[in-house]
Parts: sequence; C-alpha cells; structure tokens
Amino acid sequence: MLIIGEKINGTISKVKEAVQARDEEFIIDLARSQLENGADIIDVNAGSGDDEIENLVWATQVIQRSLDVPLMLDSGNPDALLAAMEVHQGRPILNSLSAEKWKMDKLLPLVSKNDCGVVALCMDDSGMPSNPEATFNVAGRLVEQLTGAGVKKGDIYIDPLVLTIATEFRAAKNASETIRLILQEHPEVHTIMAISNISFGLPSRRLLNRAFLVAAVTAGLDSFLVDVNDKSLMATVWAANLLSGNDEGCRSYLSAYREGKLE
Amino acid sequence: MLIIGEKINGTISKVKEAVQARDEEFIIDLARSQLENGADIIDVNAGSGDDEIENLVWATQVIQRSLDVPLMLDSGNPDALLAAMEVHQGRPILNSLSAEKWKMDKLLPLVSKNDCGVVALCMDDSGMPSNPEATFNVAGRLVEQLTGAGVKKGDIYIDPLVLTIATEFRAAKNASETIRLILQEHPEVHTIMAISNISFGLPSRRLLNRAFLVAAVTAGLDSFLVDVNDKSLMATVWAANLLSGNDEGCRSYLSAYREGKLE
Repeated sequence: MLIIGEKINGTISKVKEAVQARDEEFIIDLARSQLENGADIIDVNAGSGDDEIENLVWATQVIQRSLDVPLMLDSGNPDALLAAMEVHQGRPILNSLSAEKWKMDKLLPLVSKNDCGVVALCMDDSGMPSNPEATFNVAGRLVEQLTGAGVKKGDIYIDPLVLTIATEFRAAKNASETIRLILQEHPEVHTIMAISNISFGLPSRRLLNRAFLVAAVTAGLDSFLVDVNDKSLMATVWAANLLSGNDEGCRSYLSAYREGKLE
Repeated sequence: MLIIGEKINGTISKVKEAVQARDEEFIIDLARSQLENGADIIDVNAGSGDDEIENLVWATQVIQRSLDVPLMLDSGNPDALLAAMEVHQGRPILNSLSAEKWKMDKLLPLVSKNDCGVVALCMDDSGMPSNPEATFNVAGRLVEQLTGAGVKKGDIYIDPLVLTIATEFRAAKNASETIRLILQEHPEVHTIMAISNISFGLPSRRLLNRAFLVAAVTAGLDSFLVDVNDKSLMATVWAANLLSGNDEGCRSYLSAYREGKLE
C-alpha cells in the first residue's frame, strides 16, 4: 500500500499563492504535516501556467532541503517533469505520462534511463476510454510500451482515471472493474487513483470519499492520493486494508488501533 | 436493496430477558425504532432453547398486532419457523434453511407452498465450505433445489456465511468473491449477510462494519442485517449504494442527504 499526500496541489488557491510568493515555510509545513499524518510519499503539483517549470523545480528543492523524503512529481507538462527530475534527490515517482503519443515520446526516454516510478494514465490520442474493457486495453498498451522500454512492472502505477459520480453514476463500479481486469492480467503492476475525484459536486464528500476508498482498495487498488489530514479517512484506510485480504493476523489493523489511528 | 433491522435477537441478553418476561412494550419499541431509523423489514430471533417455538410465535404476534410490517422470521429450529409462519400476517422471509438434508426436508415443502422469501445458508452436511468456489457450489445446489420446488429466484436470499476476520484474514475478500460468483451465474437471486459478524473480537468494530458494508455492497450484496440505529452506518449505506452503480442520477443519495441521513 502506498499512501500519497495530495495537499501540495496548485489548484488549491492557498498553495498556488504560496508557490507564487515563494513561501518556503508554508510548503515545508504542508509536506511535514502530511508525513506526520501517515503519508508514505508527498505529491507535489506546483500548478499550471507559464512558470510551471520553475515552480515545480522550486517546490521540489525547497521540500527536499528540509525533509528527507522522495516526492511524486506531478505535472501535466512533461518539460516540468524533466526539469524537476534533474534536481530531485533519490527515487521519485513521475505523475504522469499517458498513451498520448506526444507525452509518451517525451517521457518514455526519461523513465527508461532513470530509476523512478511512473504513473500512467489510461488515456490516449482518442481521449478517455468509456468503459472498463476499453480502459483495460489502454492499460495493457501502457504496460507493454513501458516494459518494452525497460521499466519494471513494479515501477508502473496505472491510473484508470475515475470520473466524478455526479456525472457518471457507474463511475465507481467501472473503476473497480477496471482495476480487477488490470490486476488479473498484470498482478505485478500497481494501480493508483486520486480518491476525492469521485465525490466532486456532491454533498457529504468526506463520507463518499471514505466509502470509495474501501470499494477501490477491496477491488485491488494499492496506491492512492488522499487527504491524509482527514483522520476518519485514514482510519478507513486500515479497515480497507484489512478487508482486502492482505493483513494476515490483522497486524496492521491492530497496530493502527494501538497507535490511536482508528476511531 | 433490503435493509434488515437486526436488533430483535435472543442472543442479546436484554432481548432474551424481554422475551422471557413477555415484555410486549420492549419488543414493540425495538421494532418501531428500527422502522423509524430506516429498516425495510425486521428480523425476529426469539433466542434458542426449549421454549423457542412459543417465543418466536409470541414475538411475531406481538409485533404484528402493533405494527403493519412483514417480518424476517429467524431461527435455527425449523419447527419454530413452521409455527411462526402459521401466525404471521402477510409475506415473511424465512431465515433460514441450508443444504443440510434434515433442514431442507423440513422446510422445502413449507417454502414451496407458501408465498414467502427464504434465506438459504451456504452450508451442507459436510459443514461450511472453505473457499469461494466451494461456497459458490453449495449456493448453486441451493438455487437448484429451491427453484426445482417452485421457489422464484427473486425470493431466494443466499447467505455466503462470512467468517470473522479475526480468525480468517481473507474472510471479507472471500465473501466478496463468492457474491460475485453467485451473481454472475444467478443475477436474479439476492445475496444477504449479517454485516457485524466480520468484526467480532476486534477493536473499532463500527468502523470495520461500515467498511465491510461498502466492500460487500459494491461487490453486489443487496440485502443485509445491520444495526439501523447506528447513524454512521446508515449514512454509509447510501454512499455504498451510490458507489455500487445502482443509483442513477444519485437520486437516493441526494434524497438521503436532504432528509438529513448523511453526515
């Protein structure tokens, strides 16, 4: 299981402001609090725009100067990922490439020659697939291209790209089905999702996020971007992990309980 | 979805005492509060022992004299089910028969000639099956015997008999897998579980029960015995139902929200 802290995200206005103002303290605190609350790795998305490359490089350096932690470098701009990779210390995870040709062309050489993990989004030049089988097919092509370039299956994190359930009421069911199909064929690859996308536009989002986490983890999801500062959600992580059949002797669940992480 | 109130259960000492003392008010209040909190039907288990038959008959009559509601008549003793069925008004669900020969011999004629639902436990004369495929095989025989006797598939509630996860760490995973196998072969039958069995012997049981409800419902479970007086659990029911892909336009979820049932 890989718990990824999602809070350093340039689409959140306070984070955007802090990045633009070069507010080191804000960014470092946000990274540190997520580590303290259980994140295994911190996603760093410095926002989009003209200065995206410099922003991501800056955030990467600022965090790693204070904290000894690998990062998930997150950008839709391959050039920002290339630049951040240059300054990153240790072994990052790149978030993300996809089966779109221009992205693959730019990033495949990078992930092929560097020791890193890579998030691969299930979309290609014809857009986002519309059902689990089509998504699974794109996933298969991603695995094939990446492993063909020498990337180990265990370094690949396939993101089936869950839609919000307010616009597609089968979104969660489709995501779980896609994960099952992928893991049946490629048990060594990881699957990854940003959990809170599911609840966008609906009330009681935290309730729905907790439930979706359980649905996805018990379908096989092993890596997820979440708000690790949400205590109820983090308690749910340990319950979901136990129910997924991977917690022999309930060891992780019981130690989470002893550490006061459950409810 | 069928939400079954689990509280009238003779293994709970207060309920046992009330039944033995013929405390009508206690039993009626317990039935009424469950209906008010969202139960579609009330399970009535009057406890085991020498007076089980009279106890179940008494509880059935007492509840139905005050409340216009069908009951889930719950006993391991087929004679108690036969007797309660005689006095029950309307269309009950019998809980339960199994593939054990002596039980099937007693109860098959009853369910074949009466208009009722029936819970069928996945166990036979060799005991409880030990893996999803074996459980699925017992389920298949149950469906075959019941439909052979004229019971409609839509009146059958298959219980895969989930173990507690403290003694079998794959229990939840196995239960979900069994449900999926059953529904693939018999999409018209219902599947049913008592949710809280999973968490017996572990801390933070309510957390684990909520998570297991989500795991099971998103695997296809449509009927469940739960503590409907647990508000967090009931909020989770609507989230799980939405995630299961059966709530077009998020209608049930949004109306649960407007009624103050979410968190």
